[in-house]
Amino acid sequence: MSHPFDDAIRLQPLGDRRFAGTTHPGYLGMVAPYGGVTAATILNAVLRDPERIGDPLTLTVNYAAAVKQGPFVIETRLVRSTRTTQHWSMQLVQGERDEIAINAIAVFAIRRDTFSHTEATAPEMTPFEACVRTPPLEGMPWFGRYDIRHARGRPLVKQDDSLSHSWVRDDPPRPLDHAALASICDVFFPRIFMHRPTFVPIGTVSMNIYFHAGSEELARHGDAPVKAVAHGQVCDGGFFDHQGQIWSGDHELLATTHQIVWYKE
Amino acid sequence: MSHPFDDAIRLQPLGDRRFAGTTHPGYLGMVAPYGGVTAATILNAVLRDPERIGDPLTLTVNYAAAVKQGPFVIETRLVRSTRTTQHWSMQLVQGERDEIAINAIAVFAIRRDTFSHTEATAPEMTPFEACVRTPPLEGMPWFGRYDIRHARGRPLVKQDDSLSHSWVRDDPPRPLDHAALASICDVFFPRIFMHRPTFVPIGTVSMNIYFHAGSEELARHGDAPVKAVAHGQVCDGGFFDHQGQIWSGDHELLATTHQIVWYKE
Repeated sequence: MSHPFDDAIRLQPLGDRRFAGTTHPGYLGMVAPYGGVTAATILNAVLRDPERIGDPLTLTVNYAAAVKQGPFVIETRLVRSTRTTQHWSMQLVQGERDEIAINAIAVFAIRRDTFSHTEATAPEMTPFEACVRTPPLEGMPWFGRYDIRHARGRPLVKQDDSLSHSWVRDDPPRPLDHAALASICDVFFPRIFMHRPTFVPIGTVSMNIYFHAGSEELARHGDAPVKAVAHGQVCDGGFFDHQGQIWSGDHELLATTHQIVWYKE
Repeated sequence: MSHPFDDAIRLQPLGDRRFAGTTHPGYLGMVAPYGGVTAATILNAVLRDPERIGDPLTLTVNYAAAVKQGPFVIETRLVRSTRTTQHWSMQLVQGERDEIAINAIAVFAIRRDTFSHTEATAPEMTPFEACVRTPPLEGMPWFGRYDIRHARGRPLVKQDDSLSHSWVRDDPPRPLDHAALASICDVFFPRIFMHRPTFVPIGTVSMNIYFHAGSEELARHGDAPVKAVAHGQVCDGGFFDHQGQIWSGDHELLATTHQIVWYKE
């Protein structure tokens, strides 16, 4: 039996860099599928391209409209290719008029063994086993697909700052790869729920990911939980941001990520 | 006489959302024009579109190839439009075969007066007037177009961390707008020059900007210098990142920005 994440990001090639997919009931959110799995599906269209070289280095996903339940098509374009780097554009379209719901670009690159230095520091956290799993949330099936354990910071509990430390693992556990890592980058709860302990509608406008680990490093990681850190900087004009980090349990920085999110007063 | 920045980002409409521009000798770098002015020129193609609504909210610029000195064409596409938000794709093409040098996407949005909270804090810095201007650099004409004054952190001087605080102002001074702000977001010196005080070739692969100020706020700012803060997180696999903030002198967070940069060992 395949993992629900692999079912969710599965694509049927239609030729000419067009791929057919379908939203997965297990990853639905309140008004649209979980944005992380949408990002992973779009990345997957490039990952499985026979001309693709290297590993994902950057992924920017702009959420233009709510993805509707049901079938969709992903269209990709290889914009520029060198021996070591590739630039891609990707769009998710839906409906009879091929309306664009997601507008994305990515860079793939062959990583080199060279000078390495991690200046950011991984958070000290209560061990995964000693933290309590976030309970399921009605109307949010995707919550059941992640074992999320907050070690610092909780949504809808007002605190002095919006810094949060959480453990995250696929449920059931699944070996980490770039698609799964991209999806985990959207797992953070909205920072505005830490500034004001009241629920308001929110929607991610744009998510940016820089990948700092290659395929081999991720393969070594296996299906262990990751540490997810996020911190908001500003909330203004109807939009708030956060910056995030995804760490392995042994202090390897796997990805850094940023979002800007719309909210309704 | 027009400001050199306005000359540099000037575009001639060719119809069908195609615009002709030319690289400006005053903003050249070692191997390509300064990436900030390229980002600003691409943004300008949308800013001047008669169907554009709202202010820039996000801009992601992927640098696929060095822009060559001389003419170029920018092509834009309005991907999706609602009453309050617009999604755009933009590309800079050059040469007989219209090769893509820059691949970019953006979100424009109408900002609303609503709950506002800035959690990040502006750095305390020696006043602009008391800091020393960075001297011009041979082969980098764009250095002459910015009055950059380092208050903390200097390139090619090894220090314990890669946190830098600098003042930045157009030279000659020019009222701040979104194009100028986008350009300033690329002004940071490479973080790897703080970890290792030796020069190596570098090139920005991708720059991401979140704008946190609307047109009116920027107009109020005028031509005063801004505070530019940057901090690296990781250097691995042949790429390093930084996260940055652009602040007004009176502690308003104007933009947050992130980059991932290629370097040669």
